[in-house]
Amino acid sequence: MTLKVYLSGEIHTDWREQIIDGSKDLDVSFGSPVTDHAASDDCGVAILGAEPNKYWHDHKGAMVNAIRTRKGIADADVVVVRFGEKYKQWNAAFDAGYAAALGKSLIILHRPDHAHALKEVDAAALAVAQEPAQVVDILRYVLHGTLPS
Amino acid sequence: MTLKVYLSGEIHTDWREQIIDGSKDLDVSFGSPVTDHAASDDCGVAILGAEPNKYWHDHKGAMVNAIRTRKGIADADVVVVRFGEKYKQWNAAFDAGYAAALGKSLIILHRPDHAHALKEVDAAALAVAQEPAQVVDILRYVLHGTLPS
Amino acid sequence: MTLKVYLSGEIHTDWREQIIDGSKDLDVSFGSPVTDHAASDDCGVAILGAEPNKYWHDHKGAMVNAIRTRKGIADADVVVVRFGEKYKQWNAAFDAGYAAALGKSLIILHRPDHAHALKEVDAAALAVAQEPAQVVDILRYVLHGTLPS
Amino acid sequence: MTLKVYLSGEIHTDWREQIIDGSKDLDVSFGSPVTDHAASDDCGVAILGAEPNKYWHDHKGAMVNAIRTRKGIADADVVVVRFGEKYKQWNAAFDAGYAAALGKSLIILHRPDHAHALKEVDAAALAVAQEPAQVVDILRYVLHGTLPS
Amino acid sequence: MTLKVYLSGEIHTDWREQIIDGSKDLDVSFGSPVTDHAASDDCGVAILGAEPNKYWHDHKGAMVNAIRTRKGIADADVVVVRFGEKYKQWNAAFDAGYAAALGKSLIILHRPDHAHALKEVDAAALAVAQEPAQVVDILRYVLHGTLPS
Amino acid sequence: MTLKVYLSGEIHTDWREQIIDGSKDLDVSFGSPVTDHAASDDCGVAILGAEPNKYWHDHKGAMVNAIRTRKGIADADVVVVRFGEKYKQWNAAFDAGYAAALGKSLIILHRPDHAHALKEVDAAALAVAQEPAQVVDILRYVLHGTLPS
Amino acid sequence: MTLKVYLSGEIHTDWREQIIDGSKDLDVSFGSPVTDHAASDDCGVAILGAEPNKYWHDHKGAMVNAIRTRKGIADADVVVVRFGEKYKQWNAAFDAGYAAALGKSLIILHRPDHAHALKEVDAAALAVAQEPAQVVDILRYVLHGTLPS
Amino acid sequence: MTLKVYLSGEIHTDWREQIIDGSKDLDVSFGSPVTDHAASDDCGVAILGAEPNKYWHDHKGAMVNAIRTRKGIADADVVVVRFGEKYKQWNAAFDAGYAAALGKSLIILHRPDHAHALKEVDAAALAVAQEPAQVVDILRYVLHGTLPS
Repeated sequence: MTLKVYLSGEIHTDWREQIIDGSKDLDVSFGSPVTDHAASDDCGVAILGAEPNKYWHDHKGAMVNAIRTRKGIADADVVVVRFGEKYKQWNAAFDAGYAAALGKSLIILHRPDHAHALKEVDAAALAVAQEPAQVVDILRYVLHGTLPS
Repeated sequence: MTLKVYLSGEIHTDWREQIIDGSKDLDVSFGSPVTDHAASDDCGVAILGAEPNKYWHDHKGAMVNAIRTRKGIADADVVVVRFGEKYKQWNAAFDAGYAAALGKSLIILHRPDHAHALKEVDAAALAVAQEPAQVVDILRYVLHGTLPS
Repeated sequence: MTLKVYLSGEIHTDWREQIIDGSKDLDVSFGSPVTDHAASDDCGVAILGAEPNKYWHDHKGAMVNAIRTRKGIADADVVVVRFGEKYKQWNAAFDAGYAAALGKSLIILHRPDHAHALKEVDAAALAVAQEPAQVVDILRYVLHGTLPS
Repeated sequence: MTLKVYLSGEIHTDWREQIIDGSKDLDVSFGSPVTDHAASDDCGVAILGAEPNKYWHDHKGAMVNAIRTRKGIADADVVVVRFGEKYKQWNAAFDAGYAAALGKSLIILHRPDHAHALKEVDAAALAVAQEPAQVVDILRYVLHGTLPS
Repeated sequence: MTLKVYLSGEIHTDWREQIIDGSKDLDVSFGSPVTDHAASDDCGVAILGAEPNKYWHDHKGAMVNAIRTRKGIADADVVVVRFGEKYKQWNAAFDAGYAAALGKSLIILHRPDHAHALKEVDAAALAVAQEPAQVVDILRYVLHGTLPS
Repeated sequence: MTLKVYLSGEIHTDWREQIIDGSKDLDVSFGSPVTDHAASDDCGVAILGAEPNKYWHDHKGAMVNAIRTRKGIADADVVVVRFGEKYKQWNAAFDAGYAAALGKSLIILHRPDHAHALKEVDAAALAVAQEPAQVVDILRYVLHGTLPS
Repeated sequence: MTLKVYLSGEIHTDWREQIIDGSKDLDVSFGSPVTDHAASDDCGVAILGAEPNKYWHDHKGAMVNAIRTRKGIADADVVVVRFGEKYKQWNAAFDAGYAAALGKSLIILHRPDHAHALKEVDAAALAVAQEPAQVVDILRYVLHGTLPS
Repeated sequence: MTLKVYLSGEIHTDWREQIIDGSKDLDVSFGSPVTDHAASDDCGVAILGAEPNKYWHDHKGAMVNAIRTRKGIADADVVVVRFGEKYKQWNAAFDAGYAAALGKSLIILHRPDHAHALKEVDAAALAVAQEPAQVVDILRYVLHGTLPS
């Protein structure tokens, strides 16, 4: 069994690398959005032409990014969404809702102080973790039935 | 044609009333989450028993609320999601993602200063408005083909 | 908003009547399996012809009952499944799994001593209650946002 | 043609091994829940943190296990569910209902004395067997069209 | 609960009238194909223009009839398919397969001497009856839980 | 049986009125796009704010119109698409493809000289007509089984 | 592009072999029901236990065969159904209806004298052929765009 | 991640070759309709028999081509549709609508002068490009997150 896991959300820390590194011995294939912030913001206009209006600049980029994120989520068995300390991160919550409606298994990753604000998102999840290492433990358990010692 | 519209998101201003009042002469049926903040937070424990742990207190409430919100979104033709000035409002973005994955027509309502943070959410919408009156104008146009004079 | 609620499971106590009576002032339409035990067991052979083999006797009845239960679950917004004190009640758990796979909002109703044995079923539910009155409270809250005083 | 088969239900006898051993020469890939009872009960708290309340202890574990079982059932062509002699086994019946609603081919495995209690579950199945060897015979027939001599 | 029932198959006897008459006191709405044989054969060319080639004459009619039969089956809760004594009746078996794939509850109506030839069709059904009166008994039981006296 | 019919395509002749008038005695409910050309072109900017760039002017309008057309097609049993003599009418062909993918019964209405260019569209249809009166004849036949005299 | 083709229907001539042989140089994977008539009739009782009643003997076999045929059709891109000269062949028409409802591309194979009786089945097909060699020509064209010389 | 891309629409220029050549270093698999115009027009009659009536000649061909195009679109992650300078190209717009209804990521490729006529098609797309090289840039960005330098 190969587990397909999509890593959505916060892009300012190395949580994705921690999960991918920790899963090296597991049969998991990972997907994620483009995490290069500048490229992600500008991809629309860089490829399809400049827009003087910032709204349409953003819009063209968000649409191109959606080609990747929709496929990533649609192909996944498990969608992990991390909420970081800063920013609104509405795209993370949007991805969580999108994945929930498709019946994907959701794992939400956040610090305890965000728990109240994330209660509706957590309520749609099969696991709520605080540390990337816990996500690795879950993936290992799901694949092999072994618990962390 | 009756249009079924679900009004999701911010609960601290009267935007829902503005839309419902403005649509009085239209064949629209509206749904919404429970907007009584205290009831919404406590419904789980008030009905199903107290929880000493705040996380499970919240969780029980979020699950009971999901009975209403899932039906509200599933039954809707159009889902309007308003993002206010304050708070994280991750449940609003979650609802937007959930509705998008179900193929609902999305209208997003927010002030221009949130545009960059909401670009992925806006990119999934068929209309992005700033004022409740614009939502009424859209509903009137969708039903009757008439534009505001 | 009319809420369609299917009441599945135990047929030896008056829990369905309690819920239906308690919901008299609510806009709820209820469905349920045939709760006349003898009719439910014999409907297949009574209508379609006797079977000397008890297995096929049961099978014919279970199939005819499935015409009703499948429609009941498919039409419902909310599926309530009650597990009683006695018997295997595998059909109740089967209905819960069936409803969960269809994305229905599940409410499970059982005494605390069954909690461990029902943990997988409860994990698929949006509410786990012990008393029929709690189900009524949930339905009232879902429809009107009001909590029990 | 590779047949994907998920083996759900009773975990106290070696019925899974009998089927897997008997199918060694067949193009079948098998999935199953975690069958280490202790790990299965404790996976939630072992990974995500202890819960003083037994209900939430169980709940966290059941949710983590659901990541594996949902994928197992969703990926399967055939779901075999075995009901043993003891325990309530509501999770087995839940899996059967879940698989039935997804349109999976169901094979139910149980002793004759459970036939009446399982009649609704059996009625959703394409085969009802008593011995693991019969399941192997079915898989061989489905793949190669050959009957046991 | 209104039960929507589609009556497919044989058009040379009055079995539909028997079922509809017998169900007069039941909350059932019936659908059926056009049973005027000549109109059914010629509807395509009568409306859309003559075809010298008999194959396309038939084809145009079959396509126009499909507008009605597809809606009839898609809208139904229960699809009854009757196989008569004569003719190939491949359209009846086609409708049964179509309804089965949509998850409709199937009732097959035929004389015992067709049982072997219809075994795959019967295997997809929830009831196999010989007489129209048995179908009425099933509909009454499904709606009211009462058996024929 | 009420038949829900969506009338898509050409907006420069009175073909919709002809069909609606001809169906006055039939149980049909009709839907259509906004056929006021100017309103349809300008609805986006009139409601949501002006755009100096013609592309985004058009885009905003097309998105708002999609709220109506998507619901119209999704709710329909039958989608009639008329191709007129002039213009590219790519939105008509788009609607036909959209409706085909949703499994709607398609009726295509066009003059014979467009037959070759429309062969892929016609191939997805259940009827290809030249005159609005033929569509009325089809609707009457589908509802009542009667042919034009 | 690998094309998955399921060959349903008549089992008394070598039409499957003709198609498979003719497609040796094409990237096609073929599926089919068990075509050993005796094994197909007896598989249920041979594996799951004898039935004195012929109806249940047939039923058990038809159910076991359905495990194979449902997967075969569900996995296929193209379903070819051949109707032979003899027998009722209701299972062939059932498979055609089942495949049509799943949106599979249907090719029907029969002699011209069956055209009128098969008109509803043919109307759901993308191609109606008379000879197995024509099916091979279609598969080659679909894969490579080349026509028979 | 392999990206499956279907290239629909205009067949008179080498835009497909430009995209395929430009993507040589990317993990993309391409599909397309048969682009040999004569073969595409005649495939139906060449394989299944001549038709004196041009309409049925075209129809048979369009149906056989649909076997390929439906699979191509259904299998794709991304559907690119190019509108050229000439012809009605209704099949291109039909494919765009079909792909949109299936939730595929759409990229539309056309010259600016067609923008107004294509506004409804563009509104369903995630990217609107003018040059094949831009499509290659999008595919590279979607796969690797790198922008054109």
